[in-house]
This record gives sequence, structure tokens and C-alpha cells, in this order.
Amino acid sequence: MSQFNNVTITKEANIYFDGKVTSRTVFFVDGSKKTLGIMLPGAYDFNTDSKELMEILSGDLEIQLPGESWKKISGGESFEVPPNSNFKLKIHTVTDYCCSYL
Amino acid sequence: MSQFNNVTITKEANIYFDGKVTSRTVFFVDGSKKTLGIMLPGAYDFNTDSKELMEILSGDLEIQLPGESWKKISGGESFEVPPNSNFKLKIHTVTDYCCSYL
Repeated sequence: MSQFNNVTITKEANIYFDGKVTSRTVFFVDGSKKTLGIMLPGAYDFNTDSKELMEILSGDLEIQLPGESWKKISGGESFEVPPNSNFKLKIHTVTDYCCSYL
Repeated sequence: MSQFNNVTITKEANIYFDGKVTSRTVFFVDGSKKTLGIMLPGAYDFNTDSKELMEILSGDLEIQLPGESWKKISGGESFEVPPNSNFKLKIHTVTDYCCSYL
């Protein structure tokens, strides 16, 4: 188990897709933020504002980045998403993730 | 939005009931801990070790404490569960909670 020390966490969750995607926001002393979240099986579209680094802590999924083909991702892997873009996910098993806003 | 400052948070989620109940653990400088979690609609049984204070941040559910009848609870309400006991929940809408271990 890894952990983040000396952080601020938002008490209330961010809830999307009827609760099938949820997260909480963590703020770091250097001003950066991450979200720690769970995605249940399903197909989802997301839009980004900033560049994102999605670290998959556990789970099996497929991702389609803009202009790319579907790619399989599993726990322990990560991927980056460009800013101001859209990406699609197919979640096959319960997925635990950490998203960094770069 | 309220938040917890100067805390440590476990990166990996606690995942129960095929991901329909998930949480992450938050540790405070005074040595206390809480879990921040999400419960999706369904019926669940939980066992406690320590006494717990369950604060419902949002959602609608029913709880049955040992030897008591079912009671409706909504976002903004809370309930306590005795140590070393069992309680039952019927979650009616996506429920965001904060559990304190007392």
C-alpha cells in the first residue's frame, strides 16, 4: 500500500455516470492535484481540460485516445491524455485509478 | 465542499461487493482514521471492530442496527454503530459517506 502524506482531501466525492465513476480530489503542498477514483464496468467518454496522467492501480480496461485505436490497459500500467481532448474507456473489471493533472 | 487538511491518504482503494462499496482510508495527525467511501444501490451486511460514526454526505438508504428496526437515513444525517457488531444497509441511491472509527 502506498500513500500520500501531508495532503488535503475533499470530503465529498465527485460522482459521475450514476455513481459508476467516482473520485475524490487530493491537493498537494506544491499546488498540484490528483483524483483517486473507482470506475465500475461500463463504457464512458471523458473530456480533459489539462493534460492528464492516468495510473491504473488495479483493473482491466481498454482506452481509445483521439485518433488512435483501442488499447488494452491493466493494473500497474498508465497512460497520458492530451489537454482539451476526449477519450473513451471500456471498463471490464472494477478499476482503481489515480489521475494526475499535469 | 469541506475538506481534511494535513492528512495521509492511502492511494489504493478498499473494494467490497464487486466494487459496489469502495473507500479510501484517511489518517489524521492525532492518530485517528476515517474512510471516505461510496455505496451503490444494493443490500449489504457489515461487521464492525471499533465503534463507528457513519456520516452520510449524500444519498438515501435504510439501516438496521442490531436488535432495532429499519430506519431511513438521508444525506446530512449520521448514525453510530456499536463495536464488534453487525449492521445491515439497503442503499436506495448512490451514497457518499465518511466513516469515523471511534
